[in-house]
Amino acid sequence: MMKSGIRAFATVRGWEPYHSPKNLVMALASEVGELCDLFRWLTEEQSRLAPSEPVQREAIADELADVANIIFLLSDHMGIDLCDAIEVKMRKNAIKYPPPGEPADGTR
Amino acid sequence: MMKSGIRAFATVRGWEPYHSPKNLVMALASEVGELCDLFRWLTEEQSRLAPSEPVQREAIADELADVANIIFLLSDHMGIDLCDAIEVKMRKNAIKYPPPGEPADGTR
Amino acid sequence: MMKSGIRAFATVRGWEPYHSPKNLVMALASEVGELCDLFRWLTEEQSRLAPSEPVQREAIADELADVANIIFLLSDHMGIDLCDAIEVKMRKNAIKYPPPGEPADGTR
Amino acid sequence: MMKSGIRAFATVRGWEPYHSPKNLVMALASEVGELCDLFRWLTEEQSRLAPSEPVQREAIADELADVANIIFLLSDHMGIDLCDAIEVKMRKNAIKYPPPGEPADGTR
Repeated sequence: MMKSGIRAFATVRGWEPYHSPKNLVMALASEVGELCDLFRWLTEEQSRLAPSEPVQREAIADELADVANIIFLLSDHMGIDLCDAIEVKMRKNAIKYPPPGEPADGTR
Repeated sequence: MMKSGIRAFATVRGWEPYHSPKNLVMALASEVGELCDLFRWLTEEQSRLAPSEPVQREAIADELADVANIIFLLSDHMGIDLCDAIEVKMRKNAIKYPPPGEPADGTR
Repeated sequence: MMKSGIRAFATVRGWEPYHSPKNLVMALASEVGELCDLFRWLTEEQSRLAPSEPVQREAIADELADVANIIFLLSDHMGIDLCDAIEVKMRKNAIKYPPPGEPADGTR
Repeated sequence: MMKSGIRAFATVRGWEPYHSPKNLVMALASEVGELCDLFRWLTEEQSRLAPSEPVQREAIADELADVANIIFLLSDHMGIDLCDAIEVKMRKNAIKYPPPGEPADGTR
């Protein structure tokens, strides 16, 4: 129902015609750029502390939400179930990167 | 439980020390770049049709999953609840972009 | 001399310590995100016309300059001659993508 | 003449019709993603050392060249002189970020 809310938000505002997969992927790159902007000059250590500082935390949460929204819109528009996609990919990753102590070629 | 599975996958492989917010944001830009790679030469119309072609669909679903995984890791590591963040941001967006017929300044 | 001007601009302002290659690459992703922001909802045709509209042209030129600046800073900090790098890469590309009528495998 | 070489490389291969500004900006995000891939798990210190390791240096130089190529193609297709754009932007930046000891508002 969150996903349908995100899509409805766009529909009501007449934004749907702009939401081709190509355009949404470009929007995703734009929003991820804003996340990069928040972190570019921070050290790794500062980046770990950033979420405990209220102003930074809010800015980060806002950008994360923007990125997540577009992911949901993209998967919705393309009829790709995000949970299924993640499961499929994790199974592929488990073969590509076997846990320590198992052979790496996936011929288990 | 999907989220905890994503994090456990990294923990078992000893990847956690690398997963500072800064590094994960950079990983996000890298994965979004791979999505851009799939769409860069397509027209908008071709991008709408891409998910009905099985090979393209699988490639897109895999990249979407990679992006979503990193979003979940990021929000988990930073202690930011993604659903809360989305709700907060949608409320801000509803004020910034009021539905047609309402005033744009949010002074309702 | 343009390149040295770009670096001097940063030095005078005390920005050099922040300009590690990692941080500059992240800055690059951020600036490219701003270019994506300008183009995300445009059709390809509109994107071709954008530079003839003065306000859009100025915004695009500014973002292009930001991206180019960071490329120059990056290559300067890493001691990589950008012209050499481009020549080397174009030779590789000429083998990978031979001109029409030549064999594609580079075994000429 | 380097710039004209980059464009000629594309023309000979029949790639020009794909090189709308929108598509090239998306290609730029893709190539910058590949640079992010090379740096995502490095510490800042490791990123400073990366160019002295030959294999990493070559990979970085190749990706930098890809990014620079697209910048040149973009500016060429849009009729924007990159050197002019950089000069204009640096003048704006000098007002926005005055050197230490000068007032920040640009009312000099």
